[in-house]
Amino acid sequence: MITLHHLEYSQSFRILWLLEELGTPYELKLYERDSKTRLAPDDYKALSPIGTAPVITDENGLVLAESNAVIDYILDAHPESPLRPAPGEGTRADYLFWFHAGVGSVMPMQFMNGILTMMKARSPALVRPIIGKATDTVREMLVAPRLKVLFDKLESDLGRNTWLAGDQLTAADISMCYSIGSADAQGRLEGRPNCQRWMEQMRATPSFQRAMEKDGRETFIFSF
Amino acid sequence: MITLHHLEYSQSFRILWLLEELGTPYELKLYERDSKTRLAPDDYKALSPIGTAPVITDENGLVLAESNAVIDYILDAHPESPLRPAPGEGTRADYLFWFHAGVGSVMPMQFMNGILTMMKARSPALVRPIIGKATDTVREMLVAPRLKVLFDKLESDLGRNTWLAGDQLTAADISMCYSIGSADAQGRLEGRPNCQRWMEQMRATPSFQRAMEKDGRETFIFSF
Repeated sequence: MITLHHLEYSQSFRILWLLEELGTPYELKLYERDSKTRLAPDDYKALSPIGTAPVITDENGLVLAESNAVIDYILDAHPESPLRPAPGEGTRADYLFWFHAGVGSVMPMQFMNGILTMMKARSPALVRPIIGKATDTVREMLVAPRLKVLFDKLESDLGRNTWLAGDQLTAADISMCYSIGSADAQGRLEGRPNCQRWMEQMRATPSFQRAMEKDGRETFIFSF
Repeated sequence: MITLHHLEYSQSFRILWLLEELGTPYELKLYERDSKTRLAPDDYKALSPIGTAPVITDENGLVLAESNAVIDYILDAHPESPLRPAPGEGTRADYLFWFHAGVGSVMPMQFMNGILTMMKARSPALVRPIIGKATDTVREMLVAPRLKVLFDKLESDLGRNTWLAGDQLTAADISMCYSIGSADAQGRLEGRPNCQRWMEQMRATPSFQRAMEKDGRETFIFSF
C-alpha cells in the first residue's frame, strides 16, 4: 500500500488524481504550506529526498520523489490500465511526447516565468525599472517564444485528439494538468479553444472531482 | 530506420550515445549552430515541433522531440535491452527517479543558473551591480540550494551503486550525462568523488567513445 504525501497547492495533485483515476487503495497524508514563507513545512522537506512535492512511501521502505517517476512507478503496478499506452500502440508517440515535455519543457519555462515576475516584483522600488528591463528581456527573448511554441503545439494536437494522446485520458494529461491549469489560472488560454475544452473535460472527469474533494482546496495551483 | 538530427553541443548527444550503446542501425544528420547567435540553425528549428534538440524522424512520418520521449520511444523497439529496467526489477525505482529527475529537476535548475549568469554578464556596466545583486539573490535562495540537494543525493546514490540504477549502465545514466557533464565542465564536481568516478566510467565506455567520434567535437556540452 502506497502513502501519498500531498502538499497543498503543489504538483503532487497530479498523483492524487492518478490514484483516484486508478481506483486503487492508498493512504493520503495532507501537508499545509508554511503560512509565512508559503514553502513546504519542515516535516515535508525532511521526508522528500530532494525537498520537493510529490513524495510517495510504502511499508517496504520506498521513498520516491519526482512527479513522472512516481507516475511511472504507480502505473507499473497496473499493467492493465489504459493510462499508459503500451509500446507499439498508435497513441504511444503522442503519449511519450506530452508526458515528458510537460515536466521537461513546459514546467521549466513556466517556473522561470514565475521567477522573473518575482524578481521584478520583489526588487526595491528605486531599481525596479532596471530589474524589470532585464527580466522583460529574458521573458521576451527566451521564455515567451518557447512557451508560445509549446502551447501552439498543444492547441494543434488537441484539435486532432480529444485528450493529449488519443480519445482516452492518459497519464500524459494527468502529468500536464499542472501546466495547463497554471496557464488557465493566469489567463493564458485565451484564444486557445481546444486547450479550454481540455480544461472543461478535466473538470468534468469524476476522478478529478474526487481528487479535488480530497485535496479540499479551491484550486490545486500554487500562485506566488 | 530512425534518423537522428543531432545539433552540435546540445542535449541530442544523449540520443547519439543511446543509439551507439544499442548498436542499432540509424542515420545521423549533424547540424552546426549559427556562428553568431550560437542558436540552432533555421532548418533545425523548422524540423523540430518545439524548436529544440533532439529530434528524430522516420520514413513513416514520425517526428519526435524531447529527450526522454525519444529515449523511451527508441527503447520500445528494444525490449530485450537492459538499458530500461522492467517494472518490478530491484533497480526500477532508482532508474525512474534519475531518468525523470535529470530533465525534470536537475536540468531546469542548471538552465536557470545559466540564464542568471547571462543576465548579469550581458547587462550594461553601469547597472551590472544592481542586476548582479538580483540574480545572486535568486541563485543563493533558490537555485544553489536545490542543485546542492540534487547533487548530494547523486553523490550518495553513486556511493551504493556503480551507475545511477545498479551496477549496469542504463538510460538514466544516458539521460543524466548532459547534467553531470555540465556540472563537471563548470568545476562543480569538486569534493564529489563518486560523481567524478561516474564521469570516468562514462568516458571509458566504448559506446560513449564512438558517439564522441561521430559527434566530432571536443565536448558535447554547450557553454554560454
